[in-house]
Amino acid sequence: MTTSFDIEVFVRFAETDAAGHINNTSYFLYLEEARTKFFYEVGIGKTNKPSIINFILASTKCDYVSQAFAGQILKVTTTVTNIGTKSFTVDHVITTDMDQVVARATATLVCFNYAEQRTEPIPDLIRNNLEKNFTKING
Amino acid sequence: MTTSFDIEVFVRFAETDAAGHINNTSYFLYLEEARTKFFYEVGIGKTNKPSIINFILASTKCDYVSQAFAGQILKVTTTVTNIGTKSFTVDHVITTDMDQVVARATATLVCFNYAEQRTEPIPDLIRNNLEKNFTKING
Amino acid sequence: MTTSFDIEVFVRFAETDAAGHINNTSYFLYLEEARTKFFYEVGIGKTNKPSIINFILASTKCDYVSQAFAGQILKVTTTVTNIGTKSFTVDHVITTDMDQVVARATATLVCFNYAEQRTEPIPDLIRNNLEKNFTKING
Amino acid sequence: MTTSFDIEVFVRFAETDAAGHINNTSYFLYLEEARTKFFYEVGIGKTNKPSIINFILASTKCDYVSQAFAGQILKVTTTVTNIGTKSFTVDHVITTDMDQVVARATATLVCFNYAEQRTEPIPDLIRNNLEKNFTKING
Repeated sequence: MTTSFDIEVFVRFAETDAAGHINNTSYFLYLEEARTKFFYEVGIGKTNKPSIINFILASTKCDYVSQAFAGQILKVTTTVTNIGTKSFTVDHVITTDMDQVVARATATLVCFNYAEQRTEPIPDLIRNNLEKNFTKING
Repeated sequence: MTTSFDIEVFVRFAETDAAGHINNTSYFLYLEEARTKFFYEVGIGKTNKPSIINFILASTKCDYVSQAFAGQILKVTTTVTNIGTKSFTVDHVITTDMDQVVARATATLVCFNYAEQRTEPIPDLIRNNLEKNFTKING
Repeated sequence: MTTSFDIEVFVRFAETDAAGHINNTSYFLYLEEARTKFFYEVGIGKTNKPSIINFILASTKCDYVSQAFAGQILKVTTTVTNIGTKSFTVDHVITTDMDQVVARATATLVCFNYAEQRTEPIPDLIRNNLEKNFTKING
Repeated sequence: MTTSFDIEVFVRFAETDAAGHINNTSYFLYLEEARTKFFYEVGIGKTNKPSIINFILASTKCDYVSQAFAGQILKVTTTVTNIGTKSFTVDHVITTDMDQVVARATATLVCFNYAEQRTEPIPDLIRNNLEKNFTKING
């Protein structure tokens, strides 16, 4: 049973900084890509235009655990950790190909109706998919 | 008495996304610029090369409160909220020129010795400056 | 008589790379900001949404002349060098506060009607403004 | 016989702008990634630290041919078009998975000795590799 969703990203030279490692802001590019592809997997809609119902980022946090460098291939693992009425929360872990943790992050996504510019309950189809396929099992 | 440090940033078109507003990742560019200029003010060293002692970002969080757009001039206000032995924490508030809150963020900075690749106590000169000039007063 | 248009940009740490200097891709951020502000000056419309008539970038080129670094304040000077029926071309020069040339660039902008998704002749008001106020004088 | 080198890139939402398509600056990220991976292939050294001899970007140009969007997978094809004493030039073509041309670009790379901070003739091993394996055949 799938309880997490993985992507791989190649670290671009432009994403590093003069300290020699990945710049703190670049991690959020990787996390956004992880969520975009996770959304496709969950059925939130592969589109470049905002669909009528979408999930917007309400909050995100990143803890920087170890350095990583240009040319590395990093894995971003996304797991759903909480599902509310109108929002859900994911954990992201970024690791090297040697399984060293580079960063740990969270993101809270809110269901938003662009046409009416207001939040909405998560549609059942998406809620079921999130619950069954991507939620960490406790115990 | 100064208890916060402000900068202004111009929102570039490249920092927006196809949803029409500033992309979630771009806020971290503004926050980094705010901390860089705050560091100059505190005396942490204006240099493009890592000095022997520097402050590295251990963690950062951003809550997205309202949308903002290309061409706007945003204010980023930085306040020290906690000073520990080896680290300190700042709050950032991003507002429009109409004083509308766009985002609220925090960042934890750790004193790091690059030469020895380990954390260190915050030097007294910097600690005093942080305490006297940039810390929010309670009560 | 104005024949060029200047802006200043602060070089962010995130815009550097592990070679220690500004990453090649970051210069295009500065050039875009220069054009956006130049457009305001010319009267091409300060708006975050594409207006019906706008100018889109058809081509851009950058020659990297010397290195520049985080924390520097760079000047971007924009001059109109050619005005055609539907497009015009600008030169950009990026310099340090010591007047050292960091990069030289060009950009070709085409008048585009978003509503009809086709190119259009440059409106007279804009053409006159470009010709009178921002074009390099020869001889 | 190989005469070109291809990579695929996923277009991130952060790489688009409020006009709804990929921002002009983002293409240079794709081109840099293409050159980095091309360099690995040619044997220019997979490292995050500048090696003593490296190739630096002297000039780059991009013509924007058609729009592309978030979520698309683009192909970047790199071909060597000219080899001089100390520099070589590549063409890049960016295409969609339907083979539509999105952008055409060029880049001039100069052999640079970081230790001595000066340009150098291209080492024979690299020159031979560039000539035999990646150069477009005429006639």
